[in-house]
Amino acid sequence: MIKVSIIGAASYAGGELIRLLLAHKEVEIVHLTGNTYAGQDICAVFPYLQGGIQREIIALTQENQRQIIADSDLLFLIMPHGQASGMAKDILAAGKKAIDIGADFRFADAGVYEQWYKVKHQAPELLQEAVYGLPELYRKQIAAARLVGNPGCYPTATILGTYPLLKAGLIKDNSVIIDAKSGISGSGRTPSSLNIYAAASQNMKAYAVAGHRHTPEIERIFSDISGNAQVINFTPHLTPMIRGIHSTIYADLRQSIDGEELTRLYKEVYAGETFVRVHDHGSWPESKWATGSNLCHIAVTADQRSGRVIVCSVIDNLLKGAAGQAIQNMNLMCGFAEDTALPLTPVYP
Amino acid sequence: MIKVSIIGAASYAGGELIRLLLAHKEVEIVHLTGNTYAGQDICAVFPYLQGGIQREIIALTQENQRQIIADSDLLFLIMPHGQASGMAKDILAAGKKAIDIGADFRFADAGVYEQWYKVKHQAPELLQEAVYGLPELYRKQIAAARLVGNPGCYPTATILGTYPLLKAGLIKDNSVIIDAKSGISGSGRTPSSLNIYAAASQNMKAYAVAGHRHTPEIERIFSDISGNAQVINFTPHLTPMIRGIHSTIYADLRQSIDGEELTRLYKEVYAGETFVRVHDHGSWPESKWATGSNLCHIAVTADQRSGRVIVCSVIDNLLKGAAGQAIQNMNLMCGFAEDTALPLTPVYP
Amino acid sequence: MIKVSIIGAASYAGGELIRLLLAHKEVEIVHLTGNTYAGQDICAVFPYLQGGIQREIIALTQENQRQIIADSDLLFLIMPHGQASGMAKDILAAGKKAIDIGADFRFADAGVYEQWYKVKHQAPELLQEAVYGLPELYRKQIAAARLVGNPGCYPTATILGTYPLLKAGLIKDNSVIIDAKSGISGSGRTPSSLNIYAAASQNMKAYAVAGHRHTPEIERIFSDISGNAQVINFTPHLTPMIRGIHSTIYADLRQSIDGEELTRLYKEVYAGETFVRVHDHGSWPESKWATGSNLCHIAVTADQRSGRVIVCSVIDNLLKGAAGQAIQNMNLMCGFAEDTALPLTPVYP
Amino acid sequence: MIKVSIIGAASYAGGELIRLLLAHKEVEIVHLTGNTYAGQDICAVFPYLQGGIQREIIALTQENQRQIIADSDLLFLIMPHGQASGMAKDILAAGKKAIDIGADFRFADAGVYEQWYKVKHQAPELLQEAVYGLPELYRKQIAAARLVGNPGCYPTATILGTYPLLKAGLIKDNSVIIDAKSGISGSGRTPSSLNIYAAASQNMKAYAVAGHRHTPEIERIFSDISGNAQVINFTPHLTPMIRGIHSTIYADLRQSIDGEELTRLYKEVYAGETFVRVHDHGSWPESKWATGSNLCHIAVTADQRSGRVIVCSVIDNLLKGAAGQAIQNMNLMCGFAEDTALPLTPVYP
Repeated sequence: MIKVSIIGAASYAGGELIRLLLAHKEVEIVHLTGNTYAGQDICAVFPYLQGGIQREIIALTQENQRQIIADSDLLFLIMPHGQASGMAKDILAAGKKAIDIGADFRFADAGVYEQWYKVKHQAPELLQEAVYGLPELYRKQIAAARLVGNPGCYPTATILGTYPLLKAGLIKDNSVIIDAKSGISGSGRTPSSLNIYAAASQNMKAYAVAGHRHTPEIERIFSDISGNAQVINFTPHLTPMIRGIHSTIYADLRQSIDGEELTRLYKEVYAGETFVRVHDHGSWPESKWATGSNLCHIAVTADQRSGRVIVCSVIDNLLKGAAGQAIQNMNLMCGFAEDTALPLTPVYP
Repeated sequence: MIKVSIIGAASYAGGELIRLLLAHKEVEIVHLTGNTYAGQDICAVFPYLQGGIQREIIALTQENQRQIIADSDLLFLIMPHGQASGMAKDILAAGKKAIDIGADFRFADAGVYEQWYKVKHQAPELLQEAVYGLPELYRKQIAAARLVGNPGCYPTATILGTYPLLKAGLIKDNSVIIDAKSGISGSGRTPSSLNIYAAASQNMKAYAVAGHRHTPEIERIFSDISGNAQVINFTPHLTPMIRGIHSTIYADLRQSIDGEELTRLYKEVYAGETFVRVHDHGSWPESKWATGSNLCHIAVTADQRSGRVIVCSVIDNLLKGAAGQAIQNMNLMCGFAEDTALPLTPVYP
Repeated sequence: MIKVSIIGAASYAGGELIRLLLAHKEVEIVHLTGNTYAGQDICAVFPYLQGGIQREIIALTQENQRQIIADSDLLFLIMPHGQASGMAKDILAAGKKAIDIGADFRFADAGVYEQWYKVKHQAPELLQEAVYGLPELYRKQIAAARLVGNPGCYPTATILGTYPLLKAGLIKDNSVIIDAKSGISGSGRTPSSLNIYAAASQNMKAYAVAGHRHTPEIERIFSDISGNAQVINFTPHLTPMIRGIHSTIYADLRQSIDGEELTRLYKEVYAGETFVRVHDHGSWPESKWATGSNLCHIAVTADQRSGRVIVCSVIDNLLKGAAGQAIQNMNLMCGFAEDTALPLTPVYP
Repeated sequence: MIKVSIIGAASYAGGELIRLLLAHKEVEIVHLTGNTYAGQDICAVFPYLQGGIQREIIALTQENQRQIIADSDLLFLIMPHGQASGMAKDILAAGKKAIDIGADFRFADAGVYEQWYKVKHQAPELLQEAVYGLPELYRKQIAAARLVGNPGCYPTATILGTYPLLKAGLIKDNSVIIDAKSGISGSGRTPSSLNIYAAASQNMKAYAVAGHRHTPEIERIFSDISGNAQVINFTPHLTPMIRGIHSTIYADLRQSIDGEELTRLYKEVYAGETFVRVHDHGSWPESKWATGSNLCHIAVTADQRSGRVIVCSVIDNLLKGAAGQAIQNMNLMCGFAEDTALPLTPVYP
């Protein structure tokens, strides 16, 4: 039985962490922090929890941070960019573990982080120790880690969808184009002119074209897999659905290979992976096949006319793309069965 | 450990039964039947299950029905009106148990059933034995039952929302007006001009006005609670959401009483109920607070100007309104903890 | 050719006014005002207008109000409650006309207004002169008016749906219960935790139960039609669609009458009305049948079992419920054909 | 004043043609044909038209085809693949004009058509005469044409989005990758397991990957513009919205050029085009900016890191992608002002 706290609980990822942890028999939630709702019960934020949990949201302050850390074995950090790196130092100094749901520990190089995120990194000395929390690629390192940088939602779907190609050396350098579609919950709980219903419903739009911050994160891991630096094109689109990432990946094949063979390769690579489901050639995954679960569904084909490979990879951005993957990482870091409390079936339709 | 079969598995309720049963450690799924998809794996219908279950859908025939029943301890029936009553006879004769997700066993009187459903009832002699499967009202009878008629989705939300008023004798006879809103999955998986996306999205419409078949089902239970015959108005509306029932209930109060007091009454009545959540006065439930869970959220107030009570009651039509309640009934009938494998937190947002 | 200005143009109603007026050959738009976007072109707010209109949004100030009024023949007012009444005085004093899209001129009695809206009315002396801008009931008065209070969206659908019953004296006093469903655009363009996509999509909820401010507006007109004071129940619901009002109206019939006869009555009452479409008995209108148009679709039936009448009435809240009706009123006030520039066919599906 | 008939009126494109033509003062609708609804009034299909038009849908037969053609000056053909080519022969022989909303006249080469559409072309001799009905590229030819092949929805958005690049020779041959997203109405009015609400809502999925029939249509026009054969990648995605095409286009630049310069080029190319709106660099179009209108919104940038150009182009699939463009073509073919009866402002939000 371990004790965990959630820093930034009044977020969608925080809500999903609470849902999953309430069903996790080896974990006790000790603290929930938040600024906007400090002093209120978590049920004021998520009224559907009434009857399921009672817990006051407390403000995180310089005064109580030490106590919050002392009371916890592991902390989930959902904080503005640049703040988690500061807190992580104190968590590790106190001998506790941390999983950062934000971007502070997704990069090996503080310079890249600071260039794309426009904030100062407060603990560059921890970047070498921090592990990129994608268990399908870095399971052993995660199991041994004190500090995990939980991957972004787009990178999770995209890296899982491209990994077999890069590992097998099948595609040309710098040829990957990623056209990604995300549900609106990816923009968080803060109301804005972009995410209000009347604007976002019945609408599709690209954003952050040629400049989204998940670009260098994907490039880092692509380079790590392939062994040489990779430049990609990454274009995210706001899609009128609450949850879901659908990543469509295009790349130039080095040699002719057909879709059936590619599918076999993918099935081999992911054999034994609980959460990755490679579908038969010709069956294309729907983003909804992952909703509410920790699954990643993938399919692949080759277009013989153009010599390109096309992959579709889908996840639930709040689960495998955030809270679910964080629990998966926690399970590994704490020695629990990797799938404990993680839904293996989506809520469909 | 019991063995269950699902007759009519290739339905939305069937899909949810499978999802819940896969996480139920005391149950093994033995047979899945279906006509349209007979001979195919269940993953051909619900591809998201690939990797989670492999099971051929078999056609239910006169020849194999005996064997299917023999292999099972309990059967869930999702069949066209009038067919479950025939099969239930054989199930009981074989000493097994049945939960009918359809309407065949929701009525005490075969005549009322036949008048509203326009089919012949094949086992009127079982109507006295069959128990109406609403655990919050008939828990003891369900625990002892061999045959349960699982309530309709509208009746579940509506009866739970009205029960405290009727039981306390607070409202005038025949004064209840129910304006109910349902997600589109209530119309099933069969494509029609009513439930296609382009027609159903961004749209609200009433249907079956003054003639919906859940009317006599609600009236039967209302009469049972209040002790005298009740005529109601029930108007369902198709609402552009996948899941969810939102039942708004109006009735004339016999005497002046305020919303705070009514709320206290509701909280008392449902104290100890795992799945019913009565909210504080002034907080109105959202249909989404139930999505993916077996919860029913309720709030109540009185309008002093008009002398009426107003109740809102929400459920997920596929869970508390169908598959979830069926599992709850199964748990009771088989001596498992009532909430086994039933989600207590919605998938929100 | 007249000149009009829109006070509060950066709103959804403002956007629809602009769309309709750009196609109105007898009207020139002179000023668009707004606070948040002052100094920017209207295309910064509604980028889809780029190439269709160029006009700077100007802040409305005490200094420029006189000039804005002087430049205009008629002004549409989309202002916070209590502010339009102040400006209307100046408009009338300058010999110009005004249509208030807000609530300031919907009441005969300033006391009722102030009780429900919690602001001071700045021109109670104009309430007798102001005409309630529902052309189907008050066409002659509107044509002669200098000042029109444009009806609320819920009242428009509800009054048109109930008018024939009240006029014919068919229903009992105080027996009307209105269960209304509105698209999310009814909550305006200002982002809030209620109207963001992730919260509002796939969700249904009641709000302002027993306290919505359209209650006294409906009661005023009901009383005006029936000749004696009427108390109603009015419960609005947020519905996951961008546009649309669906008003379901219940009332106790004084005498037995069937749905066919009621339908005939409705068709007679609305014969000759361009924008009201009464449907054959048994056909229930869909909110989407009005989307993008100025239409109101109505159907009616009687429930013989309960002795109640049930009416469904649908409109587009931004058109017949706001901007469309305002143009209809403008057309009447300025001597144009009543349907000029008003869409008679919805954008379907 | 011309007389037109719609062959296949009970379709979404048919419904939009009717909406637009009812507001077109120079056109009279003479016949509406359809098989499923033959003998019923068009209001049985589109009840929202009740009060706006009365016209029986007639079955198209070998017997009455001659008369239908004789009664019409121009016919819109919405027919199964392979049938329009047969009828077009008779229309031209009778000296009348035809606009085929289907694919029969979009290709110069009957062989390519037959390979991708798997049906026999019935009038290959007309393919040289038929004009591809994209006015922004082929205005003069359309004005002189008797027979127009109305472009597909995906090709319309994609070709308008790529034309300036191809024309200026800025991109490498065979480097274009098109990731397109379409609203569900693109799949038509026939209910299927793919387009029902519960399946399509809250979901994103690719389909017809590496095999969609709009591929050769786009390649034909790309080759025509660039002067040499072009092979493309085209991947369409079903998106949970009723209407809208959002085409995201990637290509390799031959030389370095920045986004501002590309934007200037696009603005020059489309200066004077009523329906094409090029947006300032950095502003990305939303599919909804076109809904209900005949507009095409475009934006472009260059990604300096990867040397690629990225274009987003949006239309309403039922208007600029079908019925609206057909009316635009009709206006040109009949000498009316090109924008007659075509909405220049979307219905937003």
